[in-house]
Amino acid sequence: MTSRDKILSLFRTHSDQYMSGQEISRSLNISRAAVWKQVRALRELGFEIEAKHSQGYRLLAVPDLLLAADIENGLNCQLVGQSVISLSEIDSTNARARRLAEEGALEGTVVVADRQSAGRGRLGRRWESPSGVNLYCSILLRPKIPVQQAPQLTFLSAVAVAETLNKICRLSAKVKWPNDILVNGAKIAGLLNEMNAETEQIHFVILGIGVNLNMIEEQFPEELKYPVTSAFLETGKSVNRLIFLQELLQCLDRYYSEFLLEGFVPIRRRWEKLCNMMNMKVEVDQGNEILCGTVVGLDAEGALRVQLNNGKVERILAGDVNPVN
Amino acid sequence: MTSRDKILSLFRTHSDQYMSGQEISRSLNISRAAVWKQVRALRELGFEIEAKHSQGYRLLAVPDLLLAADIENGLNCQLVGQSVISLSEIDSTNARARRLAEEGALEGTVVVADRQSAGRGRLGRRWESPSGVNLYCSILLRPKIPVQQAPQLTFLSAVAVAETLNKICRLSAKVKWPNDILVNGAKIAGLLNEMNAETEQIHFVILGIGVNLNMIEEQFPEELKYPVTSAFLETGKSVNRLIFLQELLQCLDRYYSEFLLEGFVPIRRRWEKLCNMMNMKVEVDQGNEILCGTVVGLDAEGALRVQLNNGKVERILAGDVNPVN
Repeated sequence: MTSRDKILSLFRTHSDQYMSGQEISRSLNISRAAVWKQVRALRELGFEIEAKHSQGYRLLAVPDLLLAADIENGLNCQLVGQSVISLSEIDSTNARARRLAEEGALEGTVVVADRQSAGRGRLGRRWESPSGVNLYCSILLRPKIPVQQAPQLTFLSAVAVAETLNKICRLSAKVKWPNDILVNGAKIAGLLNEMNAETEQIHFVILGIGVNLNMIEEQFPEELKYPVTSAFLETGKSVNRLIFLQELLQCLDRYYSEFLLEGFVPIRRRWEKLCNMMNMKVEVDQGNEILCGTVVGLDAEGALRVQLNNGKVERILAGDVNPVN
Repeated sequence: MTSRDKILSLFRTHSDQYMSGQEISRSLNISRAAVWKQVRALRELGFEIEAKHSQGYRLLAVPDLLLAADIENGLNCQLVGQSVISLSEIDSTNARARRLAEEGALEGTVVVADRQSAGRGRLGRRWESPSGVNLYCSILLRPKIPVQQAPQLTFLSAVAVAETLNKICRLSAKVKWPNDILVNGAKIAGLLNEMNAETEQIHFVILGIGVNLNMIEEQFPEELKYPVTSAFLETGKSVNRLIFLQELLQCLDRYYSEFLLEGFVPIRRRWEKLCNMMNMKVEVDQGNEILCGTVVGLDAEGALRVQLNNGKVERILAGDVNPVN
């Protein structure tokens, strides 16, 4: 822990009382000048710190920052978040997580950034990543599963993101095959999972997650071809990013442990419950042909199961799926 | 083409006649001193070049080298081998191919090396890679297929390697699930395929292929726990590496084109024909349990289909499969 993290931790454990500069200085074994310097730095970061003559300092309010020490503090996880790297700006959290993975970083390492200068979405598309309002994070996993099963983790992260939105923001988020999260038909979060594997073993998987939390209308680019939204736009309330992230990491951790023990079935059931097109008539555009049928579920490889009008069930691995009226 | 490649090509197209230094110099528009320098360099590489007074030079014999120009010369491929990189020594051809892939190299790029200083086999094991006797190559592909189907390419390369051994070396090579090639029960070739992908698209796949061609008993490490062999040990005849490699690349090219057009079914049929345990009773060790049954084929995801004694067919994605007497 840095001196700043130590002071912050001290303030938090004494939130109902004033602490003098001398007390802090003695308790952390740093000079009073250092205490004063750190208090000033914290104020610059947006922490509200009251200073009362002859009584000392007291923490009144914390800004919506994503600091590694805050994220780790009180995080109830087995594996996810073992190491948290928090950055104010990065090209993309996935790219940083990939570099860390190649250098041997621990399973469960989390990279979170306040802003991405080159955020990427599906198929190399740009993912708008303004500062301070949303969540951009990447989680490094090293599952000992066959390569064919790695896409199952995309569904695991979709379920965790949707359930966290529903719990923390009281939304009714749905999942859309293969990897979208929607609220009232508009995209609220995106997943970009990357994998590096060889014939018989996965070196690493990176779960990249972007969630539009407090973004307002003016912050979305104009040229988007699909409807988008944010938790704030849906509810009118701003979301505490730290609370959201901690809940998300705990949810991912729980489902990942369960996945390693029990396999894909529990995730598949949850995903099917959250699926926006379950039991609906759909058209599947596969480029060279269009299939019509009813969505009946997800299979073990992450294929969407669509029952055609002749009763046969097709496994869809690629293509655009849209409801038919 | 370098001057050396040009001279070599000229020698080859005039293999039945002498060419004077002056003729070569004029035909390639280089100085006579340069001709002489290149002839000397070629002799140092092992080319036998006769020089007859007042008649000129004639190519008598070529060494068993793997030069890019020789590999490309007469190669009948659509895609594989569009670019060939030939190295005398490299850490591992897969590692080099991966670096090239990340830098944007073309699909079909082939990396071949005379010797690997850090050749790797399955699960990070060392792959013995002495100089001048075997084949070590990696092929970069960028297939537009779902991630779940990428393991199918391992079976494609297994079939191509086994069929090339059978055609060029007149062996009866078999394939063993998931990625071994055996002759009389001993390992003759290994495959190490790597993949880099994100949710909906494969960035690249590298087919890594090592074939024991002319290796002799003394060149195998002593501590190997499984039986190994080479084409030379099986037949008593040494194999021309260039001819073998060209045939292998052509075979891979043919099957890859077919795969992109027709999918996995034709490859699966060929693999099943070459499978060493087809219709045999086997035990499958899955770590926590052992299954007994009969091998009945391969499925679309590359799982081995094993029919248990109760009639149910299990899909094996991981585990050691061994015949039961």
